[in-house]
Amino acid sequence: MTHTFSKRIEQVPPSFLREIFKIISDKRIISFAAGLPNPDLFPTDAFSKAAQGTLEETGNTALQYGATDGIPELRTIISRSYKKKDGIEVHPDQIIITSGSQQGLDLLGKVLVDEGDVVAVENPTYLAAIQALSLYQPHFVGIPLLENGIDLEALRTLLETQKPKLLYTIPNFQNPTGLTYDNDIRKGVAGLIEGTNTTLVEDDPYGEIRFEGERRTPFAKYTENVVMLGSFSKILAPGLRLGWIVARDPELYKRLEVAKQASDLHTSTLIQHLAVRYYRDNDTNKHVTDIALQYKKQKDAMVAAIEKYLGSSVSHTNPEGGMFLWATFPEHIDTAKLFPLAIEEGVAFVPGESFFSGEAAKNTMRINYTNSTLEQIDEGMQRLARAIERYSI
Amino acid sequence: MTHTFSKRIEQVPPSFLREIFKIISDKRIISFAAGLPNPDLFPTDAFSKAAQGTLEETGNTALQYGATDGIPELRTIISRSYKKKDGIEVHPDQIIITSGSQQGLDLLGKVLVDEGDVVAVENPTYLAAIQALSLYQPHFVGIPLLENGIDLEALRTLLETQKPKLLYTIPNFQNPTGLTYDNDIRKGVAGLIEGTNTTLVEDDPYGEIRFEGERRTPFAKYTENVVMLGSFSKILAPGLRLGWIVARDPELYKRLEVAKQASDLHTSTLIQHLAVRYYRDNDTNKHVTDIALQYKKQKDAMVAAIEKYLGSSVSHTNPEGGMFLWATFPEHIDTAKLFPLAIEEGVAFVPGESFFSGEAAKNTMRINYTNSTLEQIDEGMQRLARAIERYSI
Repeated sequence: MTHTFSKRIEQVPPSFLREIFKIISDKRIISFAAGLPNPDLFPTDAFSKAAQGTLEETGNTALQYGATDGIPELRTIISRSYKKKDGIEVHPDQIIITSGSQQGLDLLGKVLVDEGDVVAVENPTYLAAIQALSLYQPHFVGIPLLENGIDLEALRTLLETQKPKLLYTIPNFQNPTGLTYDNDIRKGVAGLIEGTNTTLVEDDPYGEIRFEGERRTPFAKYTENVVMLGSFSKILAPGLRLGWIVARDPELYKRLEVAKQASDLHTSTLIQHLAVRYYRDNDTNKHVTDIALQYKKQKDAMVAAIEKYLGSSVSHTNPEGGMFLWATFPEHIDTAKLFPLAIEEGVAFVPGESFFSGEAAKNTMRINYTNSTLEQIDEGMQRLARAIERYSI
Repeated sequence: MTHTFSKRIEQVPPSFLREIFKIISDKRIISFAAGLPNPDLFPTDAFSKAAQGTLEETGNTALQYGATDGIPELRTIISRSYKKKDGIEVHPDQIIITSGSQQGLDLLGKVLVDEGDVVAVENPTYLAAIQALSLYQPHFVGIPLLENGIDLEALRTLLETQKPKLLYTIPNFQNPTGLTYDNDIRKGVAGLIEGTNTTLVEDDPYGEIRFEGERRTPFAKYTENVVMLGSFSKILAPGLRLGWIVARDPELYKRLEVAKQASDLHTSTLIQHLAVRYYRDNDTNKHVTDIALQYKKQKDAMVAAIEKYLGSSVSHTNPEGGMFLWATFPEHIDTAKLFPLAIEEGVAFVPGESFFSGEAAKNTMRINYTNSTLEQIDEGMQRLARAIERYSI
């Protein structure tokens, strides 16, 4: 037989990481490419205890089908955390538990995006967000991401002329750049969004992993017109596939719940119960602080290695949290062409062009620092320096 | 702001179960409505041990991001099971682990269904399949489900005249009817499908829970042109949200993998590792046999109660496995109108009309027998008899 595939699936851009998965799985390669948390920090013992307790005491409930929006105890934990950290009122009934925050993107696409709708994204932005939303066949428009947040003038023009359905942002320690919006830009974005029919999406997987500077204010403090995506992937472990979506508009919430049910009925009840018990029995604030302390060491090592081995011709962001930094090379270096040489030298990264909508800055790259030891960071950067030397000949 | 929701989300039919969720959660109601497995049979102790072992020995891997298609060990278990049970060759690389088999439906819709495509379904059929696929805006056409499988003549005509993209089937202990295709119908369906561009979907969540009669032959034995959906929900526990999809066509597989990645990156690595360990350390065949033995008792009790309290005016299926039976009442009884009376009497079911595409047999209902004790089954059927008595006055 001949399959005729849907138009939507043929429009999904290829994933650079999926394509190089085999290469970067090679243990001889030091990989700054994937966005993996440091597994040494996973709370395996605490999770083992939580699993035992859950299964012994409430196994029959934890293994049964559950409600589509998730178990109330977990939604309450998330609700309290918004209140405590940022003074935001989010009712547990405004939260749907998702299978990672990636699923939140799929649900938003399902519920809000028709073919040809405009979706505004930061430029560059998280590639998997583009992939998730591209299944709903929007027209993506990039807004330049500057050092302190997106370009407000460009946003203003875009909102007026193209009336996007969504504005997708990662305001804290953005993937791929590591950049953070300052509070003035946040206020500015919220002000521009107010009164429009554009839904602002705040994806915040990294916000709690701050190792320097002051916590910034979420958009939800400045506007009601925001949907928040959250994740336990970076503060607990990504292998759980546990995240959430906050929709304070009841009509939107109802439709997201329908979409969630159609997609997978609900997120694993067992995983949700494990997380609740982990939160009940452990000092989760200390755990997050420990992660941030460790990531700061790794980030500092990466910055030091870049400056030592690549020299002053390379500029880079210096994130106050999260997992990535962004390096910009002299104009003549196309990092996609540098990539095979780097692999030959035994180091991997993601060429920056993968993250752009429209015209790409080809002389850029995303560098992950959380999944390499301090020694690997130093050695990997020496290898990258050798690749650049060969490239320039 | 005013949300403009996508056209697709406005087309999802309402879920009867979602709408009555609060009613049937009332502990005074005996519910034959939801399709819940018997939680007393969940292997909680074995899972507790599996969780401890997994987290102690391989916690760092089990909590990390994983490959989109799932961990190889679990795909190998599934591959071997097809070989052993049915002599079907399914390579592990033809399997994608999904977040329940419900997600398999979403992925098939994403990859194959464009707006207006015809999707053929059994009539009646599993409502959540309609919901999942309706997001991709097909035109559903129902094929009558007869006692031994779907109506081959109706299928032949439909394949010729409407060239459906998909034919969705549940050939074993179907939801909602409990009916099973005999092997002649299976051969007939496969023969008609061969040479067309219609993809046959075999959803088989209940096939292993057979308590009487002979195991039937999967479509995959008769045709290559089939996608199989499988689930651990009924043989292990639904709260895991663990299922799989088999696509032997490499082009289809590749696109399903892209859709899976866009949807939620991958299914929980921890849950996958738990399942692998559970399979390694336990007699899973015995466990499935135990489930079937218990369900037979419950099914027999339900059949006896129907015959005792509802009498000969009601006909019903007598399934050889699975979780549901289907009752047909005299023509003048509309089970949707009976429903509120039944709730007043303290018993719930799902009116049959919810499961039909097109014209519905309003005098039917789906009855679940796996989530009630033998006493509840007897008492619940007495309550239903009282409701019918009141209806008929």
